[in-house]
Amino acid sequence: MRLRHKPHALDLIAAHPQFVVADPQKGKWKEEFGNNNPIHIEVGTGRGRFIYEMAKANPHINYIGIEKFSSVVVDALQKLIDEEVPNLKLLNKDAKDLTVFFEDGEINRVYLNFSDPWPKARHEKRRLTYKSFLQNYEQVLAEGGELHFKTDNQGLFEYSLMSFSQYGMPLKFLSLDLHNSDFEGNIMTEYEEKFSSRGSRIYRVEAKFPLRTAEAGQTAEQAAVLV
Amino acid sequence: MRLRHKPHALDLIAAHPQFVVADPQKGKWKEEFGNNNPIHIEVGTGRGRFIYEMAKANPHINYIGIEKFSSVVVDALQKLIDEEVPNLKLLNKDAKDLTVFFEDGEINRVYLNFSDPWPKARHEKRRLTYKSFLQNYEQVLAEGGELHFKTDNQGLFEYSLMSFSQYGMPLKFLSLDLHNSDFEGNIMTEYEEKFSSRGSRIYRVEAKFPLRTAEAGQTAEQAAVLV
Repeated sequence: MRLRHKPHALDLIAAHPQFVVADPQKGKWKEEFGNNNPIHIEVGTGRGRFIYEMAKANPHINYIGIEKFSSVVVDALQKLIDEEVPNLKLLNKDAKDLTVFFEDGEINRVYLNFSDPWPKARHEKRRLTYKSFLQNYEQVLAEGGELHFKTDNQGLFEYSLMSFSQYGMPLKFLSLDLHNSDFEGNIMTEYEEKFSSRGSRIYRVEAKFPLRTAEAGQTAEQAAVLV
Repeated sequence: MRLRHKPHALDLIAAHPQFVVADPQKGKWKEEFGNNNPIHIEVGTGRGRFIYEMAKANPHINYIGIEKFSSVVVDALQKLIDEEVPNLKLLNKDAKDLTVFFEDGEINRVYLNFSDPWPKARHEKRRLTYKSFLQNYEQVLAEGGELHFKTDNQGLFEYSLMSFSQYGMPLKFLSLDLHNSDFEGNIMTEYEEKFSSRGSRIYRVEAKFPLRTAEAGQTAEQAAVLV
């Protein structure tokens, strides 16, 4: 997406700590929300339509939208200023630090929507489905937690399915043409609406993390190499 | 494909045991071919263009085309009668009996091309990528052996990628649009040429089987459940 310099973005974010959490406390997210509901996060939340609509539609789930660009997250913030949604928080942080913001097992689902494809081979490690990111998701997810990913980028989707398989992740849902499938309740991102209307196929997958046997004492890395 | 009754098919097959092996001897395939080259099989070989072209292009690999319909395999046989290829044999047998025809680890690669999609849920067990078939492939494949699969059927491809993932199989190649990819050396089946010319996307994947640790003594079934 196009990034515009917004000089007042940081001021607006700083003025609304109840919406954009400035100093996330690892292990304290249930306190932050004031309940014990499951927590779903979106990594790369952009302008926030997806997570905002999800939060409105599912009041018994807590949502956290993580977006590193202040000039973008400010649009998500504006939605909350216009109409507050108590079960949604934003984080203006870099997703590579996920394990700094969340305790092990504190999260119940991770969403990735239309992530930057980083098509050049030398940028593989920046893709949000690269194994180092998968390790972080696995670490912060509770047992049985899921990763839900959609994109219109064929190359990124191919790469991601290979990456998941090499990590030993079983898939529980897969559509190679979401908008022509019988999947119900899809909430479109801003980007999704624009590009699907131009005829792009949307790909979507739900994946779990492999069960690790405690006896084996495997790290995620070791298990990933094993398969 | 359309099956026509061909009254002379069985006679023609019986008259050419050097091409269509009548009584396959488990563990004796290297003797059958008279060399120690790797053995690649195609399950559901149809009219045989793919395996015939592969055998001509790769004389140092032995190929076996398995097709249960005599009225179809007879077309593959005719190709061999017209121009013999020493490193290709045919089997007029049902793929469900794979472990009867091949010793454990006797095979180095399995090809599935445009397999019957069996779209109804109650026919899932007939799909050649259902877990019971995967178990058979794993059993007859040597360590490091691969499964190569292509199809134009979106539903079967989605199902198969899920099935592979639930079996713990890492993918080493994936294309969601083979004919618009940079994959080189694709040999088209009769079906593939016809349907891709009508604009169907061709999907292709190469998968391995998970390494099983001998100490764990896991069966394929147990390991599949584990992940």
